[in-house]
Amino acid sequence: MKIAIIQMKNTEDKIYNLNHAKELVSEASDKGANIAILPEMFCCEYRNEAFIKNAEPAGELIWQSLSEMAAQNSIYLVGGSMPEAEGDKIYNTSFVFDKSGKQIARHRKMHLFDIEVEGGQKFCESDTFSAGNEVTVFDTEFGKMGLIICFDIRFPELSRLTALEGANIIFCPAAFNMTTGPAHWELLFRSRACENQLFFCGCAPARNIDGRYVSYANSIVTDPWGAIAALAGASEEIMLCDIDLNMLRSIRRQLPLMSARRDDVYCLKTI
Amino acid sequence: MKIAIIQMKNTEDKIYNLNHAKELVSEASDKGANIAILPEMFCCEYRNEAFIKNAEPAGELIWQSLSEMAAQNSIYLVGGSMPEAEGDKIYNTSFVFDKSGKQIARHRKMHLFDIEVEGGQKFCESDTFSAGNEVTVFDTEFGKMGLIICFDIRFPELSRLTALEGANIIFCPAAFNMTTGPAHWELLFRSRACENQLFFCGCAPARNIDGRYVSYANSIVTDPWGAIAALAGASEEIMLCDIDLNMLRSIRRQLPLMSARRDDVYCLKTI
Repeated sequence: MKIAIIQMKNTEDKIYNLNHAKELVSEASDKGANIAILPEMFCCEYRNEAFIKNAEPAGELIWQSLSEMAAQNSIYLVGGSMPEAEGDKIYNTSFVFDKSGKQIARHRKMHLFDIEVEGGQKFCESDTFSAGNEVTVFDTEFGKMGLIICFDIRFPELSRLTALEGANIIFCPAAFNMTTGPAHWELLFRSRACENQLFFCGCAPARNIDGRYVSYANSIVTDPWGAIAALAGASEEIMLCDIDLNMLRSIRRQLPLMSARRDDVYCLKTI
Repeated sequence: MKIAIIQMKNTEDKIYNLNHAKELVSEASDKGANIAILPEMFCCEYRNEAFIKNAEPAGELIWQSLSEMAAQNSIYLVGGSMPEAEGDKIYNTSFVFDKSGKQIARHRKMHLFDIEVEGGQKFCESDTFSAGNEVTVFDTEFGKMGLIICFDIRFPELSRLTALEGANIIFCPAAFNMTTGPAHWELLFRSRACENQLFFCGCAPARNIDGRYVSYANSIVTDPWGAIAALAGASEEIMLCDIDLNMLRSIRRQLPLMSARRDDVYCLKTI
């Protein structure tokens, strides 16, 4: 199985972004990828005003474009994330499409990113977004996969619940910044993969130092031993990564963590 | 508050180890430490036969020696761990004593270390030990502290439960090996500290390359930002580390993770 992590440089122009994503997904498919992933908020700038301006319900332009990219290239597509409008609410939502363009998963970011670091990053997603309430897994011909978004990775509970539902790879469109990225990006992707003994795949926007929100980029794939399997730089690129799920089975056999959990002592479950 | 992490080289001779620990705790106290911690199984070799041979009930020689070390130096002592006999069972147990030598905590290792890495480490603790069933916190004049042992750190549930009970520092006597140490030691101590926004303190035996179980050593303190505050090498040493709990409060204020947990969506609790 080959994954294409599309570290795309997004702009404030939604139509440009959709066309650019289309080119890149097509290129990923030409390079033999079975699954492609786009970054968090690939379709607009990462700021609250842009989320409000570009919000759309599922089924409209952004969603439709993603569905077509999947179908036209016969590729599974983890469609980064988009501001999804529903009623008077907006969610930070990732849709997944199968090779026929059919939606097979939807994850609404469960943990909203509110931060105010002294002399560093300030952002308050909860000013704009409502939070999702669901653990997300989906089936593919390569096995079961999971889906979280960015800040969700800081909370071990969600990745664990996703792993317990059987995910072999957890996809995570994300956009860490220049404060949290250098401090925590590799750490979190490595540790979530290590403790759950699965693959983790983070896809970030390319870094634009002139942008209002500067993405750390460094898209990453980590393996069930907690090592880095692939790591991008700061610029736009399509990073390809071969995944062998036999590694997951081998690691779990040698160091049986999932079965060593003490679910007779503690309980982690959705309410 | 000053912590002394006593990266002691242990031998197969229990009496020698107890006397050596006594010297080192006294030295730590002389250097101004308020709390000292000894390594996992500081009192014997790290192998199942040694655990059986050296097992003692609480209140006997090892326990008594630790209590005296605390009282004589007027220091809090996290007594590494010892093979604790109770009835026909043996536990891998850490006792904590206050400055008067009174036992104020007991943690029995909750997750037993069973591993068989191809071409690497093989060990089966559950051949010998029974597992503990309790989350462990204790009060000190410096605030509430938590206590886990070695393999326990791989399971995010236990550290999270310990943090939710109010621990500001989690102490972890541990003995990673030359397979898992280079791969996961720093990763786990950094990520548990980062995700729970507290201090984590790992104390390992010094490395003895002639021993049957070669400890990775590298005793470590990580801070609430997930950074390394102190890191030892491979040899015996007393590593001192100043801890400022204001950092914990500052990090939690700037990046409020603990309150951003979705305990309306998922539930983690002891049964």
